[in-house]
Amino acid sequence: MTVLSKFLSLETQGNGEIVNITDRLTEIFAETGLQNGILTVFVAGSTGAITTVEFEPGLVNDLKDLWEHIASSSDVYQHDRAWGDGNGHSHIRASLVGPSLTIPFVRGKLTLGTWQQVVFIEFDVHPRSRELVLQFMGEA
Amino acid sequence: MTVLSKFLSLETQGNGEIVNITDRLTEIFAETGLQNGILTVFVAGSTGAITTVEFEPGLVNDLKDLWEHIASSSDVYQHDRAWGDGNGHSHIRASLVGPSLTIPFVRGKLTLGTWQQVVFIEFDVHPRSRELVLQFMGEA
Amino acid sequence: MTVLSKFLSLETQGNGEIVNITDRLTEIFAETGLQNGILTVFVAGSTGAITTVEFEPGLVNDLKDLWEHIASSSDVYQHDRAWGDGNGHSHIRASLVGPSLTIPFVRGKLTLGTWQQVVFIEFDVHPRSRELVLQFMGEA
Repeated sequence: MTVLSKFLSLETQGNGEIVNITDRLTEIFAETGLQNGILTVFVAGSTGAITTVEFEPGLVNDLKDLWEHIASSSDVYQHDRAWGDGNGHSHIRASLVGPSLTIPFVRGKLTLGTWQQVVFIEFDVHPRSRELVLQFMGEA
Repeated sequence: MTVLSKFLSLETQGNGEIVNITDRLTEIFAETGLQNGILTVFVAGSTGAITTVEFEPGLVNDLKDLWEHIASSSDVYQHDRAWGDGNGHSHIRASLVGPSLTIPFVRGKLTLGTWQQVVFIEFDVHPRSRELVLQFMGEA
Repeated sequence: MTVLSKFLSLETQGNGEIVNITDRLTEIFAETGLQNGILTVFVAGSTGAITTVEFEPGLVNDLKDLWEHIASSSDVYQHDRAWGDGNGHSHIRASLVGPSLTIPFVRGKLTLGTWQQVVFIEFDVHPRSRELVLQFMGEA
């Protein structure tokens, strides 16, 4: 059983941008040579989140509508009153979706569905440099 | 330390059906003989999700009301305009709840609460055959 | 590779109280002596949840407003009609946020962001004694 720590760097644009990281995860996973185990994808930060979605332009826009419906960017947040950085809604949305996702891999393949992509959501209000943690645990 | 990959097949009815999979997880876990570690339950697909709930008819209906409140099945989704499969709300809800759950087990028992059940939620709009991934990692 | 099961006891006040458990996690992690692996934090119970947030008073209040917006404590829930314990909204909110969080650790440090804290949310309507499960898996 092995632990392998990898990192995935992203330059994001902000404002609910949804970044499809599936191909990069698949490439980094292939390089590990692991066969069976789990991959934990983790966002070190409180204004970004990880989930899966069928990545196509319609759903990308539908998800943005969802965030506005749940935690509107035009509402007044106490975080913004205190800190003035205008990203209260970003924090709230990120806490709801969550910063971690654990994906099993079996016989050398991530067990994602055919139309299921892993996405990082940049909820912050301006471009950010992100470094996601990819923790692989398993056997070769 | 061992990795054991198991699969749980489900025939679902669709439309937000909530399936209690706790007893089947417990049975499959008992067969592994593992004592301490973690179980990752993963949905390979983008219209189903995993979480826990006290599984009783009142809450099952309350959860369905929640989904209608957050992402109504009668709203217009861009996904449906483009693809015509009428399950835009299914995708949105599944992304919000998430496809993975990790449950520790200690001294041969899953650490679930007395009234806490593990549920698969079939957000898709028609019956589906599902195969959940159960990745057990731990020691005997 | 080692599995270490630890437990974190909390006395909560209820009603959406958000408890910052980051310092206690960090202390317990340091005692394990582990260097690389993952920590799974799990709530055994169906009215509490785990996520991360920048823990400051503004966001704590903004999150409480979010829960009222998504699943109001003044709505009528079928769970309450059947069981009369008045915590239907607590269950619904806990299912949405989820009971588990997996945090990688690398070279002896949890990979949390600078302003990112791990929080337990007590959604139940009265004070509770909680015991969170902390499952550490990794190598020294």
